[in-house]
Amino acid sequence: MALIVQKYGGTSVANIERVRNVAARIIKTKNEGNKVVVVVSAMAGETDRLISLAKEITDKPNERELDMLISTGEQVSVALLAIMLNSMGYPALSYVAHQIKIITDDKFGRARIREIESERILEELDKDKIVIVAGFQGIDSQNNITTLGRGGSDTSAVAIAAALKADICEIYTDVEGVFTTDPNIYSKARKLDKISYEEMLEMASLGAKVLQIRSVEFAKKYGVLIHVRSSFSDKPGTIVCEEEISMEKVVVSGVTYTKNDARIAINKLPDKPGVAAKIFDAIAKKGIIVDMIIQTSSMDTGYANLAFTVSKADLNKTLELTKQVAKKLGAKEVTYDENIAKISMVGVGMRSHSGVASKMFSTLAKEGINIQMISTSEIKISCIIDAKYTELAIRSLHDAFELEKG
Amino acid sequence: MALIVQKYGGTSVANIERVRNVAARIIKTKNEGNKVVVVVSAMAGETDRLISLAKEITDKPNERELDMLISTGEQVSVALLAIMLNSMGYPALSYVAHQIKIITDDKFGRARIREIESERILEELDKDKIVIVAGFQGIDSQNNITTLGRGGSDTSAVAIAAALKADICEIYTDVEGVFTTDPNIYSKARKLDKISYEEMLEMASLGAKVLQIRSVEFAKKYGVLIHVRSSFSDKPGTIVCEEEISMEKVVVSGVTYTKNDARIAINKLPDKPGVAAKIFDAIAKKGIIVDMIIQTSSMDTGYANLAFTVSKADLNKTLELTKQVAKKLGAKEVTYDENIAKISMVGVGMRSHSGVASKMFSTLAKEGINIQMISTSEIKISCIIDAKYTELAIRSLHDAFELEKG
Repeated sequence: MALIVQKYGGTSVANIERVRNVAARIIKTKNEGNKVVVVVSAMAGETDRLISLAKEITDKPNERELDMLISTGEQVSVALLAIMLNSMGYPALSYVAHQIKIITDDKFGRARIREIESERILEELDKDKIVIVAGFQGIDSQNNITTLGRGGSDTSAVAIAAALKADICEIYTDVEGVFTTDPNIYSKARKLDKISYEEMLEMASLGAKVLQIRSVEFAKKYGVLIHVRSSFSDKPGTIVCEEEISMEKVVVSGVTYTKNDARIAINKLPDKPGVAAKIFDAIAKKGIIVDMIIQTSSMDTGYANLAFTVSKADLNKTLELTKQVAKKLGAKEVTYDENIAKISMVGVGMRSHSGVASKMFSTLAKEGINIQMISTSEIKISCIIDAKYTELAIRSLHDAFELEKG
Repeated sequence: MALIVQKYGGTSVANIERVRNVAARIIKTKNEGNKVVVVVSAMAGETDRLISLAKEITDKPNERELDMLISTGEQVSVALLAIMLNSMGYPALSYVAHQIKIITDDKFGRARIREIESERILEELDKDKIVIVAGFQGIDSQNNITTLGRGGSDTSAVAIAAALKADICEIYTDVEGVFTTDPNIYSKARKLDKISYEEMLEMASLGAKVLQIRSVEFAKKYGVLIHVRSSFSDKPGTIVCEEEISMEKVVVSGVTYTKNDARIAINKLPDKPGVAAKIFDAIAKKGIIVDMIIQTSSMDTGYANLAFTVSKADLNKTLELTKQVAKKLGAKEVTYDENIAKISMVGVGMRSHSGVASKMFSTLAKEGINIQMISTSEIKISCIIDAKYTELAIRSLHDAFELEKG
């Protein structure tokens, strides 16, 4: 008998018929002799519906009240699933955050889980009940309702699995697992059987949307075994786990892309000590995160060129700020480019294998794709390229590194 | 400066535009120097939408889970109203039941409020905040979410007003107050300026839908002054308060009707001691409430005829049960009639004035309306008549007792 936490996303409970399918899967797991705890997201589209109600009122809804509003989406899902299971003869109880004390900090809209009381859940499991928990939400120390940010239900599920010391946390989604690349971009994409927490973290932060980054951090910290799989099939998906020796043999696990970034360039910046610092200080003070930075100086002219990337959502704010500071510093001009993509290769094998970077660069060069910026970490290499080459870059890198082979 | 509790029903917050109107009214009250606590129902139609989702799954949804589901309706309303008020520059905080500990018993779907912690609300009022509370819901001692039954937000508002020792509880609705009769039935219906708790209780239980009965019981018990008024106009409505001496001068305050009852008759029941008891015991055991009863015995024949009314919702169940018991007791037949109406006259003045009953009977007789059953209390007289005469009866009684005059 195992204790299994199952998490179902919004598309898996999008309508009553799908809720019935989810219930059938839960019952199957239960009948195999397991204790089952289920974490559910809001029905697909519901969170957006609620947000648009708030946006009818104002562009900047009060954050506490917005969390109060959108947390109802998950409450509806858990109640419907519990009604379904009970009607099928399987006693089930749904819980929202305050009932099992999912305590978070007080950062509305992006709260972090601090603590979960496992007692009530374990009690009901011992009474042979199926326990259903609303994902995405928590309460702060003042009992205010908080939410964990988009995809937060993944984190809820992993945190609950950690608190209950569950044997496994199954994340059911609309894809069959983690792939070497986006199957919508390249049909040769291969499902990975296993991936390490670290690779998953890089892939998630580099654009793979299968798991919320924080859920992977949580799983890594508490050693929670995650099984990412499809709620529409019975096939095994991808296991996310501790790095194993065998994993190092695979140099590259996947190639990801994101088009969420924009590039800002400052041309002919007088090259004095501290000018870059002045710019990035101003940006950091506004809470804007800068991803990649390149600075090129010319000894001859006394000018430097500076380029960096930020998320597209922050572009306007950053551009305005940069123009102000650049003007003061006497720079010639500030330009920007939204048509860029970040292509990244990820693999723990990079730690012990060299040559990945040069192979990546030469592969892109062979296709005539110019690399605008580069950044690397121990287990990943990212390149900024013109967005129109995204698919071409993905396909050629996937082929060059033979990712279709297991 | 007064402490005012305002309750807005579902039609008052049916869409964002109406939420804006409600916010404007709250702000006006606040700007007049008052402390304002607002209780809100679900947006019109929302509770029904949620119930129909549950009914897609099963005809008998688990009661705990149904309350978990439908309580989200009020949570959405309070959050939207708080977002609106904050966006208009008035700091407001919304609360659901667990946050201010609206403790109820554990009867899901029809819970009764036991206790409300006033501390947190009073604290926020002292900080000059507008406090918004979700109506209709509570939590039991185990932190399960409960609901108070249809119209329960009225009771939430009155209970909160009692807990806070508020100066007045304003119930905003889509009618302008309590009328001498339903204005849709008779255009001469007159709005009452004042009505006693007891009259209001009778009128509510006899078909006037302005206030939930339990809210009036609560108000009476704790002496909460209620002001029933329209959210679409600024006119004063009806004050519900302790009986005053002046009220006794008015013999009849209103005439109400309900078509919710059905009549069951048992013909030729062998007239032995205890036969009626056997029938009503069986019915009571199923939790069915019998309203009026008439028994006519004939010494000559040794048979009795028995008739009684129950709510239409209970008709089928009661009929089946009655037929079983009647058969055992050797009765000839059981018949029923759904086409009946109960017409009631209510007034605290009846205590000191006689002749109301005879005037009522003769008025109906003059119109050729047959009275099938009669029941009376200290301050009301009810008659069961053929439903098709409902409007005629209302109009002629309203005229006969000159209710259009103040």
